[in-house]
Amino acid sequence: MITRMSHLFLRTLRDDPAGAEVPSHKLLIRAGYIRRAAPGIYSWLPLGLRVLRRVEDIVRREMNAIGAQELAFPALLPREAYENSGRWNEFGDGLFRLKDRKGADYLLGPTHEEMFTSVVKSEFTSYKDFPVTLYQIQNKYRDEERPRAGILRGREFVMKDSYSFNMDDAGLEESYQNHRAAYQRIFDTLGIEYAICFATSGAMGGSASEEFLAIAENGEDTFVRSTSSGYAANVEAVVTPVPDARPIEGQPEATEYDTPDSETIETLVNWARQEDIRLDGRVVEAADTLKCIITKVTQPGCDDEGNAYQPELTGILVPGNREVDMKRLEASLDPATVELASEEDFENNEFLVKGYVGPRALAANGVRILADPRVVDGSSWITGADAKNRHVVGLVAGRDFTPDGFIEAAEILEGDPAPDGQGSLTLSRGIEIGHIFQLGRKYTEAYDVQILDENGKRTVPTMGSYGIGVSRLIAVIAEQMHDDKGLRWPTAVAPFDVHVVIANKDAAAAEAAENLSEKLSTAGVEVLFDERPKVSPGVKFKDAELLGMPLVVIVGRGFADGKVEVRNRLTGETTEIDYETAVQTIQEMRGA
Amino acid sequence: MITRMSHLFLRTLRDDPAGAEVPSHKLLIRAGYIRRAAPGIYSWLPLGLRVLRRVEDIVRREMNAIGAQELAFPALLPREAYENSGRWNEFGDGLFRLKDRKGADYLLGPTHEEMFTSVVKSEFTSYKDFPVTLYQIQNKYRDEERPRAGILRGREFVMKDSYSFNMDDAGLEESYQNHRAAYQRIFDTLGIEYAICFATSGAMGGSASEEFLAIAENGEDTFVRSTSSGYAANVEAVVTPVPDARPIEGQPEATEYDTPDSETIETLVNWARQEDIRLDGRVVEAADTLKCIITKVTQPGCDDEGNAYQPELTGILVPGNREVDMKRLEASLDPATVELASEEDFENNEFLVKGYVGPRALAANGVRILADPRVVDGSSWITGADAKNRHVVGLVAGRDFTPDGFIEAAEILEGDPAPDGQGSLTLSRGIEIGHIFQLGRKYTEAYDVQILDENGKRTVPTMGSYGIGVSRLIAVIAEQMHDDKGLRWPTAVAPFDVHVVIANKDAAAAEAAENLSEKLSTAGVEVLFDERPKVSPGVKFKDAELLGMPLVVIVGRGFADGKVEVRNRLTGETTEIDYETAVQTIQEMRGA
Repeated sequence: MITRMSHLFLRTLRDDPAGAEVPSHKLLIRAGYIRRAAPGIYSWLPLGLRVLRRVEDIVRREMNAIGAQELAFPALLPREAYENSGRWNEFGDGLFRLKDRKGADYLLGPTHEEMFTSVVKSEFTSYKDFPVTLYQIQNKYRDEERPRAGILRGREFVMKDSYSFNMDDAGLEESYQNHRAAYQRIFDTLGIEYAICFATSGAMGGSASEEFLAIAENGEDTFVRSTSSGYAANVEAVVTPVPDARPIEGQPEATEYDTPDSETIETLVNWARQEDIRLDGRVVEAADTLKCIITKVTQPGCDDEGNAYQPELTGILVPGNREVDMKRLEASLDPATVELASEEDFENNEFLVKGYVGPRALAANGVRILADPRVVDGSSWITGADAKNRHVVGLVAGRDFTPDGFIEAAEILEGDPAPDGQGSLTLSRGIEIGHIFQLGRKYTEAYDVQILDENGKRTVPTMGSYGIGVSRLIAVIAEQMHDDKGLRWPTAVAPFDVHVVIANKDAAAAEAAENLSEKLSTAGVEVLFDERPKVSPGVKFKDAELLGMPLVVIVGRGFADGKVEVRNRLTGETTEIDYETAVQTIQEMRGA
Repeated sequence: MITRMSHLFLRTLRDDPAGAEVPSHKLLIRAGYIRRAAPGIYSWLPLGLRVLRRVEDIVRREMNAIGAQELAFPALLPREAYENSGRWNEFGDGLFRLKDRKGADYLLGPTHEEMFTSVVKSEFTSYKDFPVTLYQIQNKYRDEERPRAGILRGREFVMKDSYSFNMDDAGLEESYQNHRAAYQRIFDTLGIEYAICFATSGAMGGSASEEFLAIAENGEDTFVRSTSSGYAANVEAVVTPVPDARPIEGQPEATEYDTPDSETIETLVNWARQEDIRLDGRVVEAADTLKCIITKVTQPGCDDEGNAYQPELTGILVPGNREVDMKRLEASLDPATVELASEEDFENNEFLVKGYVGPRALAANGVRILADPRVVDGSSWITGADAKNRHVVGLVAGRDFTPDGFIEAAEILEGDPAPDGQGSLTLSRGIEIGHIFQLGRKYTEAYDVQILDENGKRTVPTMGSYGIGVSRLIAVIAEQMHDDKGLRWPTAVAPFDVHVVIANKDAAAAEAAENLSEKLSTAGVEVLFDERPKVSPGVKFKDAELLGMPLVVIVGRGFADGKVEVRNRLTGETTEIDYETAVQTIQEMRGA
């Protein structure tokens, strides 16, 4: 079937929409693919919906190929379903909650672990039914604090979520690897440039987990890659290589100094260099200083008497050349939550001398100390002496102070050694497009799923959870593929295969374009046909560039000589081809 | 691709689920097509989802064929979008409302007139863009007071809703007729038995409207058909043929009688016959008596001073052989609401003598009287005399009392004359599966949609609204097609085309069944293959009957002689066919 521009429900916009910041958002609006209905909530107009459906079909095909079975849970779910897992509360403000006419509590499903677990529990009882992998492609709802960038981070969005259930860990590993391979095929088919990153588990709890991040300047996630190996990881997942411990014996005693006007690391290092202070004989670097960041950590849940846990002062020690990376700190402390200490906290605790806090005062006052892994026994530091304008030089870990534990909290710097020992790290930004996750028995235990194994013994199956942000993928493709003229869709997902444009007022050319469109359509090519009689060729070309079909076929001046022009929107190439054999040539170009 | 029963996520149930009343509900649960998640909210398991998708595709194909363009609005919608139309309030308790984390009001879309009107307003400005028809197939939400019968009346359900926008009434009529024809093709393809009924507009406001009702004993809607013409209508839409007025002059004066123990129509008629009372010389029938039903009618909205309108006493007059049909009464009074008068109302109004109310007391006390259309001028009645144990005989309309208006409120009786003058009416029950509706300018005016016509003049386009209850159709098909053994799916929507069953322990037969399944699958037939090794043939046959694929192919005892058995689940026929040519034979049987 041919779709005619004069009939298509479409209005393209010349100007960027107000408030849109990233190119994919601007272009999807300008090209009439989507429209905003509310913050983070979008309508899919005909062109956008065509792309969405094609992406869904690609995802569906690969999920079916690994034996996953599609079903569809409701989006409107009863509170009870999310009580066992504790997530009715855990999701906090991110969950859309509502009441029905009878006052019963409901939620809009943000993710469906609970439902999948329950349905497996209710349908299956024997090891013979396993393994089983189920999935759905469905609207999900999350009340994001800051929805952004159009459909890149929406509050109503389409997600493919699948869940594997296996009787043992080896089975889970296999289901996990099947998903990993399927995800690679999906993203490769879509032509997305991406990295597979080791990930922390976040709020999900569990063990092995990887994220698929599309490379994108505008991405919200920072990740690292090794210069010499395939290693890639979320910054939250990077494990700092631990240096060898150093001998304590023979190290000079710690010495305190007056250090006027040296409240920053920079001024402190300057002071040390002016004073010709040395550590192990070396000139002092920022990395030789030790920052002591005071935070408050709150454990989740409550004590035996039902009282919520109180925030607990905690000192985080990091080398002075690094900031504390709050995302890494939060991931390390999860499920506890953390915030920086306030002015009031400093006022209420006199031993905290702002700008001069050191580990000794913390230890003396019972404040827990969590140190960067580089703070090994025998390492020697310049740090605060717990008094205004005073620092201590040569404070040795394991002799002068002992951390209560170690923590990944320091920022990753470009050039840091890779955790796998091969090469150094580079930093990139990306957008999460997929997440695979060996969830384990968290939900199957919470829902008391008991399956009889070969020996008739009750066994709790183990679970994997796997997600793809389907609607987000459309933004990601737009983000990676666009140019300054507009969208450029890969053949696999373009709303139409070919965009035929009449660029000639001659009636014969118009008829030829119509015939060509008909023939292409009959040959199974999806054609968008710009036959608008009163629109100038220039406007039509601009629209074709903005809309971004992979091939634009122009029946214009050259038609008098039996030629039509084909513009490849992806490569930018322009080719003249014979009108007579155009259908065949265009089909070959599509396949190429 | 072959789907194997040992792999399929399915558990069939031997027993009917608790609380299920209608066959479609019982069978869809027992056969593992759907599962209940909450009242009126269901999960689609793999078999059910396959049927749903096939039905959606049939609907989509026919909508595309009439030039409708698919898009997708969010289900989560901002309150503002439903303010202009007044429906944020009008929907009452039927609307799921919620707040986001910032306290802003949202709703779950019950129907999307507002969104479609807004998007046309924002994208289109010129008559050249019209006509345009848009549609979506999407989850809708209505907080039904009494969700029932599984997916027959759910609170989350899939609906196709489309909307046409035309510059003039002739265009609307054309769009309407296009939809009507498309709906017929859809329901014919699905093999549904249905009637197209004239419908009232209900709460939607507007003019021409027809409902497609699937014939079903368990249907909630009663409708009528003519014995001699194609006339069919919702009971709410039946217009009573008005008898000719009769001459008043010459009729005897009204006479009051003591009528002890005659509070019901039956006892009253008995009394009249015993007393040999005649009307126009005829023996008295129940139809000669006049019932006076006291109601309270409340107009919507409020007066100029912002006070909500108070309920107003209203007398409804109907011939004594008919009950007041509250659905017809409500539809006639809409948008006003109506309830029966309470004991208190009778106590507060002494002129209302229970069991003996007549039109004279109502008129004397300023109570509005709305009469059945049969109460023509000159018609003579036996009715209450407004005093205990007293009735009046020969009360003549237009002489002794005059209704303030006429109303369709009396029940329709089997055998009533058809409104089109051809034949009489029969009553049937049905399930609404589609509704087409010439909505007019209600929404385009509310949203101030102004389009420039050929002369550059601002014109408000006119709108049609058209709905199909897509998920409900699955229940309707199950309801119409099932037998006592289970489901029976028409070829167009069956989850699988062919169900192959191994019913023989012989390894060669099992291999032959496997080969046959492979070959069918390669030939494009969707195969469900029951290869479960430890399940008896009897159980497999029972499952096949319950699941309801149109063709069941059994590789069993006959295989030793090169034969396999084909059971046609729709016709009940069993055929032996040659194994060697089975693929071709089965394909022919499918087409047949």
